[in-house]
Amino acid sequence: MPITFDEGPEAGRRIGFGQNRLEAASEERDETTLATALRDGRARFHLFADGKVLVRKDEDPTASFSAQDYRAFGGSAEDLVLLGHDGSIPVLATTIAMEGDAPPEPYRLYDMRSLLYSESVSDSEASAAARASSLLHWHAMNRHCGRCGTRSESRLGGYRRDCGKCGSTIFPRTDPVVIMLATDGERCLLGRGPHFPPGWYSTLAGFVEPGETIEAAVRRETREESGIEIAAVRYYASQPWPFPHSLMIGAYGEAVSSEIRFDARELEDCRWFTRSEIVSMIEDNHPEGLRCPPGKAIAHALISNWVAG
Amino acid sequence: MPITFDEGPEAGRRIGFGQNRLEAASEERDETTLATALRDGRARFHLFADGKVLVRKDEDPTASFSAQDYRAFGGSAEDLVLLGHDGSIPVLATTIAMEGDAPPEPYRLYDMRSLLYSESVSDSEASAAARASSLLHWHAMNRHCGRCGTRSESRLGGYRRDCGKCGSTIFPRTDPVVIMLATDGERCLLGRGPHFPPGWYSTLAGFVEPGETIEAAVRRETREESGIEIAAVRYYASQPWPFPHSLMIGAYGEAVSSEIRFDARELEDCRWFTRSEIVSMIEDNHPEGLRCPPGKAIAHALISNWVAG
Repeated sequence: MPITFDEGPEAGRRIGFGQNRLEAASEERDETTLATALRDGRARFHLFADGKVLVRKDEDPTASFSAQDYRAFGGSAEDLVLLGHDGSIPVLATTIAMEGDAPPEPYRLYDMRSLLYSESVSDSEASAAARASSLLHWHAMNRHCGRCGTRSESRLGGYRRDCGKCGSTIFPRTDPVVIMLATDGERCLLGRGPHFPPGWYSTLAGFVEPGETIEAAVRRETREESGIEIAAVRYYASQPWPFPHSLMIGAYGEAVSSEIRFDARELEDCRWFTRSEIVSMIEDNHPEGLRCPPGKAIAHALISNWVAG
Repeated sequence: MPITFDEGPEAGRRIGFGQNRLEAASEERDETTLATALRDGRARFHLFADGKVLVRKDEDPTASFSAQDYRAFGGSAEDLVLLGHDGSIPVLATTIAMEGDAPPEPYRLYDMRSLLYSESVSDSEASAAARASSLLHWHAMNRHCGRCGTRSESRLGGYRRDCGKCGSTIFPRTDPVVIMLATDGERCLLGRGPHFPPGWYSTLAGFVEPGETIEAAVRRETREESGIEIAAVRYYASQPWPFPHSLMIGAYGEAVSSEIRFDARELEDCRWFTRSEIVSMIEDNHPEGLRCPPGKAIAHALISNWVAG
């Protein structure tokens, strides 16, 4: 029985989507794994329609359903993936075809951001749904072999796809992204994307490029987006981010320049904020109505941890 | 002109493949970018045959060639990627068809591991070649759209592929991998893979799975491979690892169990090593002839940094 460290010291354990209890045991899987899981009467299912996750919104909201629910909602057998086991209970995910625009009461469909920020379900269910969302999107984008174009097949309960023609195997994809708070000690740097909610400012972020270290990506992205130069980079924590299948790598950057020249194609604004301004943004009483991303986002953790010193 | 931090404080700057000087400027690219780079008479080329990089092995060894060399070796126009600019000089990469088994003297083909460990070319050339190797492999495995199977096209100098049929866009892939040194303070945990060179022991490592934090991946991989339980996880440094396109995320793990039960499918052996044993392994005078990976690998950096305290 594995020892668990839910109260471990590092920051990552308290960030949304980061509380996965499921043991994927991807190395232990074979061609019988999925069928065995499906035969288990205790199996639980996460169900997705158009990339949104089904939630039963009653006195005890849940995104985890029984095999009976899976069948009642017409869950796709082809899209089934085994996310892993919670203890000995198999947890699976698949797509459902939703007739009309919305599911019947008391069911709702949540996009993954709303699921995170609304805190409608438990952290462990949201984390399992994040794994499911990433895997289902990856399968949808990889029905065919990238090398030869032939239709490929899902194997090992969805943890691999094989091409029967050229023999290629392809594994689920996770994109590393750096997300960083640049600070000069007294101030921190936040930007505003054109599609952010009103008044919202957040940390800068961007994909790690081929052949790049995390540290180089933090410096390059900060420079490209804001014009600010970073010297020392300090890792903080990480967060699975199912949009569609990223790994957010959170870091602090020591700013060694101060004049902002932001990239107007990516940002609507970019400014320095003092600690007291950030406190008012977190407490939602900033005089201009400015705000930060809410608690479950690693951006919030980076910002609030900095304010706390 | 960007400020550079080649002597920056974090460990990652001294690790092989991590010294990329090239500005990819992927956000600035358009359909003219590659043609403009090719018209520049100063352009440099990295050339690959069967996944190996061409090196001119003379008094001043190099993996960087002129446009004349690119044409003389029959470089593929279709496979061309623009790695970025070194200052204002464009640096590209492509494949060559090598007749016979080996190139003529004084040229050699190096697999990327040999290029790293032999230190045959400068750190910045090896780092550029690592980016090239990752990108060229990714293109080879993604000639077709994963969603619909149609032949896709390389765009933006190789930093994107577009499907003309279904409209999918796909970006270069980088796989996050955790590589960790578990320690109990006085000892560290190393394993031996079945394909390692004789006497060689190294850190454990494995892919970050969908919906998993870096910290959870460190704990899970260590447990699965060795049976050792990890509590606190501390990030150390990162390294681009072109096998075929990974990002190694190096960390220390606080071991809170001591009985090893290693996974015999993945490892031939796994043991605890004392500091003095590690010193003899690094200095290559261990009584049993045991050794660690050489200097440019992040495994070496993790191990030697721990020994140094």
